[in-house]
Amino acid sequence: MDSFIKAPETEVLFAKNYDDLSFHIGKYGTNVLWVVDETTAKMVRPLPEPNVILPVGEKNKVWDSVSIILKEASRNKLGRDTRFIGFGGGVICDLTAFAASIFMRGCTLTLIPTTLLAMVDASLGGKTGIDFCNTKNLVGTFYPADEVLICPETLGSLPPRELKNGLAEVIKHSLLSKNDALYILLVQNKNQILAKNPEIIKKLILLSLQIKSDFILQDPLETKGIRTGLNLGHTFAHALESHSRMMTWSHGESVAWGVCRALEAGVKLGITDKPFADGAAKLFLFYDYDIGFRLNRGEWLDFKDQLLSDKKKVNGQLRFVLLKSQGDFVSMPLDLNMVRDLVIKQPLA
Amino acid sequence: MDSFIKAPETEVLFAKNYDDLSFHIGKYGTNVLWVVDETTAKMVRPLPEPNVILPVGEKNKVWDSVSIILKEASRNKLGRDTRFIGFGGGVICDLTAFAASIFMRGCTLTLIPTTLLAMVDASLGGKTGIDFCNTKNLVGTFYPADEVLICPETLGSLPPRELKNGLAEVIKHSLLSKNDALYILLVQNKNQILAKNPEIIKKLILLSLQIKSDFILQDPLETKGIRTGLNLGHTFAHALESHSRMMTWSHGESVAWGVCRALEAGVKLGITDKPFADGAAKLFLFYDYDIGFRLNRGEWLDFKDQLLSDKKKVNGQLRFVLLKSQGDFVSMPLDLNMVRDLVIKQPLA
Repeated sequence: MDSFIKAPETEVLFAKNYDDLSFHIGKYGTNVLWVVDETTAKMVRPLPEPNVILPVGEKNKVWDSVSIILKEASRNKLGRDTRFIGFGGGVICDLTAFAASIFMRGCTLTLIPTTLLAMVDASLGGKTGIDFCNTKNLVGTFYPADEVLICPETLGSLPPRELKNGLAEVIKHSLLSKNDALYILLVQNKNQILAKNPEIIKKLILLSLQIKSDFILQDPLETKGIRTGLNLGHTFAHALESHSRMMTWSHGESVAWGVCRALEAGVKLGITDKPFADGAAKLFLFYDYDIGFRLNRGEWLDFKDQLLSDKKKVNGQLRFVLLKSQGDFVSMPLDLNMVRDLVIKQPLA
Repeated sequence: MDSFIKAPETEVLFAKNYDDLSFHIGKYGTNVLWVVDETTAKMVRPLPEPNVILPVGEKNKVWDSVSIILKEASRNKLGRDTRFIGFGGGVICDLTAFAASIFMRGCTLTLIPTTLLAMVDASLGGKTGIDFCNTKNLVGTFYPADEVLICPETLGSLPPRELKNGLAEVIKHSLLSKNDALYILLVQNKNQILAKNPEIIKKLILLSLQIKSDFILQDPLETKGIRTGLNLGHTFAHALESHSRMMTWSHGESVAWGVCRALEAGVKLGITDKPFADGAAKLFLFYDYDIGFRLNRGEWLDFKDQLLSDKKKVNGQLRFVLLKSQGDFVSMPLDLNMVRDLVIKQPLA
């Protein structure tokens, strides 16, 4: 295993392969609770007891799933020194982390993300949560994992759409860093990335996590206006996901769309450098994201409702992250009429 | 208002009377969510909107109540800069604090405890929680209130049994401090305490909170083996409460009983100074606690089951706090056969 410390309290380890991963996990002993989904359950044979197997999908990122985990922990009379192990995608990581953070007011937590999205996003930074009242991550805690184990080999069976789900966050990270390394990697290695070349993917994950952890280290609880930058595109994206009831649009597809809306808003307001915005949009198009999508006019009211449920409100005012240029963001309120014009189809002229 | 800082992140304020309390609350503005119970709802007229009114009683200290609070916050599109105000006894304080800690990953929190137990225990120290799977406080977070407002006038209508519910924790605190002030106050002012004399009660609360905060300041997350001391009697007490299904025994009655069992265990093991243990038991008897209660032999299995669900386990081993003498505690495992002999009726000799 390669080890490198990435964020406060969390150690991120890279496993060379499954054997390396198994060897590391074998050292935990018995005081653990496994949380997997129906897909990842098949990757660990035999699955150690006690364990919880949850169905796949965002619609399970709700209290009922957390309750199942907590009940299994209670049934096995586990103590507060138990290690919760979340082995799966973002949903499993967020659910396990939330459950670990509230069982007996906090247990030990290991996350083993098995999707690109979970590797570059959910596993690092301590944001745990569930969807509630149709709003994404409305309920949760800040609870950094003690350990994140990344084994790029687990991406082997990941479908292309799931890879794309994670790549949007990677592209977003590349736009948030003044360092060009990740941006260039994305531009120059599309085919190898889509083919999940292990060396390239590892480099991609590393660079992406480094950017994310730079934000988190400076502002772990998102109280200083720095970590906010990571929300680029997310005010738009969460509203679209919630509007589509977590069905049509994946998180990554929504983020790609949302980042482009934020770039357009910035250009309109004279805040965002236009050539930079054009380049960024091109990069999303290059990876085949539907950034041109617009809502029908009749959908605006529901979309607006979802927007106004967003966490990123200060004094009742919704805030958006805009980019001036690569690695240089501002957070500000936007006029709702302007937002509407950015997201709905315009009448024919 | 008198202000004094008591614990990390929490400011404790004493209100002279209701008017003083109302004046302070009036300054909050509109960005608040009130959580009250059916009793305290009548003390705030008119109750500001938005608010949640919950039924009274420990059986409501469950996820469903938290869910009602979160839904009301969501329905009103409250942001993460909202102030949750819990106005009520320990159940309301614990529920409100848990909800505030997980809504949008953490909001501002004001607690206004209205029972003696909540004033000296639930309001300070950041332990939030709900009962889960029949186990007390199995699920929760560490989330200190930003502000605790104490108005002894709210104790006016408190029934005697509720006062006793809080006094057990006060007596416990007096045993945990090398400073005799609280112990002496309890010995010398029984009648005035039971009559809720405002000056004496204020002194009682202050001394009690000072002792509690000394423990918390040194060990906010109960990871250093210091805060553990506050659990004196609680391993026994929680098992009794859970065994009685939160029905027959109040928290305070259980704590009084549990502290006496811990003292007996210590005497049996030669750890606890016998004259000190006798004096402590006398003080509980003086305040009319049923410290002589024993379980029927047939109840032991369920009681043991409740014991083994306790949070205070390290490496699967249950730990108990014992006192060597006043203000000098140790935490250690106890032999389960010994525990059984302490809590069940002995056969006639």
